[in-house]
Amino acid sequence: MKPPREKWRKSFSEWFHDVLFRAEIYDYRYPIKGTGVWMPYGFKIRRKLLEIVREKLDSTGHHEVLFPLLIPEDMLSREGEHIKSFEREVYWVTRGGEEELGVKLALRPTSETAIYPMFNLWIQSYTDLPVKIYQVVSVFRYETKATKPMIRVREVTTFKEAHTAHATAEEAEEQVREAVQIYKEFFDAMKIPYVISVRPNWDKFPGAEYSVAFDTVMPDGRTLQIGTVHNLGQKFAKAFDIKYMDRNGEFSYVWQTCYGISERVIAALLSIHGDDHGLVLPSEIAPIQVVVVPIPYKGRDDEILAESRRIYQELASAGLRVIIDERKEITPGSKFYDWELRGVPLRVEIGPRDVDKGTATLVRRDNLERATCGKEEVVEEVRQLLRRIDEALSERAWSWLREMTSKAYDVGEAKRIIKEQGGIVEIPWCGKAKCGMELSELVDADLLGTPWDEEVEVDGSCVVCGAKASTIARAARAY
Amino acid sequence: MKPPREKWRKSFSEWFHDVLFRAEIYDYRYPIKGTGVWMPYGFKIRRKLLEIVREKLDSTGHHEVLFPLLIPEDMLSREGEHIKSFEREVYWVTRGGEEELGVKLALRPTSETAIYPMFNLWIQSYTDLPVKIYQVVSVFRYETKATKPMIRVREVTTFKEAHTAHATAEEAEEQVREAVQIYKEFFDAMKIPYVISVRPNWDKFPGAEYSVAFDTVMPDGRTLQIGTVHNLGQKFAKAFDIKYMDRNGEFSYVWQTCYGISERVIAALLSIHGDDHGLVLPSEIAPIQVVVVPIPYKGRDDEILAESRRIYQELASAGLRVIIDERKEITPGSKFYDWELRGVPLRVEIGPRDVDKGTATLVRRDNLERATCGKEEVVEEVRQLLRRIDEALSERAWSWLREMTSKAYDVGEAKRIIKEQGGIVEIPWCGKAKCGMELSELVDADLLGTPWDEEVEVDGSCVVCGAKASTIARAARAY
Repeated sequence: MKPPREKWRKSFSEWFHDVLFRAEIYDYRYPIKGTGVWMPYGFKIRRKLLEIVREKLDSTGHHEVLFPLLIPEDMLSREGEHIKSFEREVYWVTRGGEEELGVKLALRPTSETAIYPMFNLWIQSYTDLPVKIYQVVSVFRYETKATKPMIRVREVTTFKEAHTAHATAEEAEEQVREAVQIYKEFFDAMKIPYVISVRPNWDKFPGAEYSVAFDTVMPDGRTLQIGTVHNLGQKFAKAFDIKYMDRNGEFSYVWQTCYGISERVIAALLSIHGDDHGLVLPSEIAPIQVVVVPIPYKGRDDEILAESRRIYQELASAGLRVIIDERKEITPGSKFYDWELRGVPLRVEIGPRDVDKGTATLVRRDNLERATCGKEEVVEEVRQLLRRIDEALSERAWSWLREMTSKAYDVGEAKRIIKEQGGIVEIPWCGKAKCGMELSELVDADLLGTPWDEEVEVDGSCVVCGAKASTIARAARAY
Repeated sequence: MKPPREKWRKSFSEWFHDVLFRAEIYDYRYPIKGTGVWMPYGFKIRRKLLEIVREKLDSTGHHEVLFPLLIPEDMLSREGEHIKSFEREVYWVTRGGEEELGVKLALRPTSETAIYPMFNLWIQSYTDLPVKIYQVVSVFRYETKATKPMIRVREVTTFKEAHTAHATAEEAEEQVREAVQIYKEFFDAMKIPYVISVRPNWDKFPGAEYSVAFDTVMPDGRTLQIGTVHNLGQKFAKAFDIKYMDRNGEFSYVWQTCYGISERVIAALLSIHGDDHGLVLPSEIAPIQVVVVPIPYKGRDDEILAESRRIYQELASAGLRVIIDERKEITPGSKFYDWELRGVPLRVEIGPRDVDKGTATLVRRDNLERATCGKEEVVEEVRQLLRRIDEALSERAWSWLREMTSKAYDVGEAKRIIKEQGGIVEIPWCGKAKCGMELSELVDADLLGTPWDEEVEVDGSCVVCGAKASTIARAARAY
């Protein structure tokens, strides 16, 4: 039995709003546009996700810190490109109590300008380097475009930003690679497929030398940026005067990088694996991995419940995140509905026949297939099935991304694919900014950039100027 | 050998600023008054503390959630007493980008008015009750008084607030007791001593029926409020129209409570256990419980290092949070200084004599006493010593609180004790507000309130009006 994925794909926006609300992930009815509330079940998913991120960052020598929310106007303006890009979307605090503030305070749109003045104080000598820190905070953007829960919001409540400083350009370059590797492993754990692109020069992070970005394809064919890694070179170091003394007593500016992910990862996680029944969660992230549901049968309810509890205990003792649903007031069917909606990877049903035969019935959330196993093998069978579900989710997600990636050798074809199918279209490009910007207009899509650190086969000529193509441009309608 | 506690007590303010900076806890040089940066080591202490809080709340049926920072002005004003108390210290966002906002947005000073409009949506029927949620967020107060790191700040970066709703007044009352019990266990784990008082009616939380507060005594004799529990009755339920349908189809307002702790707990933790060498951390909260320091000796460095590493491995395998300090460029003395400053509870030294005799030298941070044990017993000995250190910290802290608690039977005596010794003075009181406020002025101190749920012996007469005392008033200079 294949789970239905039609509604999921055809009316994604509706599906997404609906599932966030009904699965108790994120309540978007808070009375400020573009802000929402993480509800208990959603918060548990968020917590798991952050546990994994923290583990990956801590084990690679990053230290968690916490900086203030407010940034004085003069600090925010210190780096020219940076402020130019953010000034139109910054929230400003101008009053404290009944007083007008002397200096306007910005709600952080991102924290470079909050953190780097402290780097100026913390970094004196080469022995202080490298510095590798991160924080998980809310960031604020006064979005004027249409907002969408978790995807385009005014308060991004889950922003993990890392900031590093190094003695040499090479070490900063190496750090970019480490960050990309960390994010790859992280998205792999979420079973989220991605392409990695170097953003076009006109679309890099304001203040960066270059930006590397992870994009995935959402069910409606639009791409979603789910992570970025920036090589900042020495631009901020010069703006904030961050220097260190080397072994010879000479002073040099540090080399910096920063990289971030946000709750958009959760939006991708929920959307890419979901189906018409609701969420489907990979086992590592699922707050509940297994739900045990007793199937009542006239006159035998006590033995069924006893056996269900025994199996529940066994799974719990084995370290699995398991619950037992003993609610009396609703039918097993309603219970199935509830836990399928919430994406619990595996359901264990215990009915009278299971008690008689000494078996358990296991139902996979990803494909809704049923299987039976002997009661002695439940723990082992559950472990195996969770692994198989994770593999299947990963395979399905990556084949979705492949399906949604096309090649086009002229503008008309590229435009048609983007309009009719969506996804990512790879187009031969000479690499010049002028042609790139024109291409973006001609195909009516965003340019995600060019492949990062990949062997790509470039054939054909630039679809704009006709010169020999030196790379491929990835075009897509991006969120 | 007793550790010196003189500087700690006599110039506490200086000690506190100094230790926060040198032990890399909290950098208070961020360029906005009353805000600071949690540095890596400080953040690790904060993380441990929050782990313990979360574990206690999760295991008592609380669910973590996350609400937006911003509160529209009309929502913040909904409950009359509440807004009156906060309006003078709220930060207001009035601009987004280049636009003036139509409705001013407050940075949350606390979240009742953000959360309860959602309770209005979430709570429909008695089956939805009780609701028990909490969040860990930053809250903002535009303090006009002198600020002090972690104790009186403009951005409180670590505010754990819990909010509950119940069907009956009795259940809300029961919830107050549960909250007090949770906080008791939490402070006990931190080895922080406390008194629990019902705040005077004129000093309760704005919008509450009554407030219960935990106070401790800081090294300078001033008290610090480290936790509060409020019975909100139905005031907010009426202001935000939070009703539920009971079993008979009748609608009633819910009964609510809320309770909070902040980073002030960390200020208390660091201050109360500290000494002239720096921090002293209880083992449960210490990011590093044991540091192994090899003591080099000419010609024998390799065997000393090998034995140190072996013991380090053994402690790590036993699940202890242990590090080994192998730095070559500094002396063992400097290492001792570093880790004593950071409050690591136990140091293991391995020198040539330890290698010869098959022993290890253990040094307790709390009293700097040295002991030797056989190398086979290191893990067991470390475990025992950590337990003993925790007991000693708890005993020392509670005896400090007892020392700093006095009784006084007239205004002059009370005033003198508060001025000369500080701490808490217990004074017979008739319980009337008029006398209480006058008492507070006469003894030139704050009234913490009356003992909560304690058998207290009341003797004598009210020191203000001379009537028979019905309770005791706790007076102190509070932070």
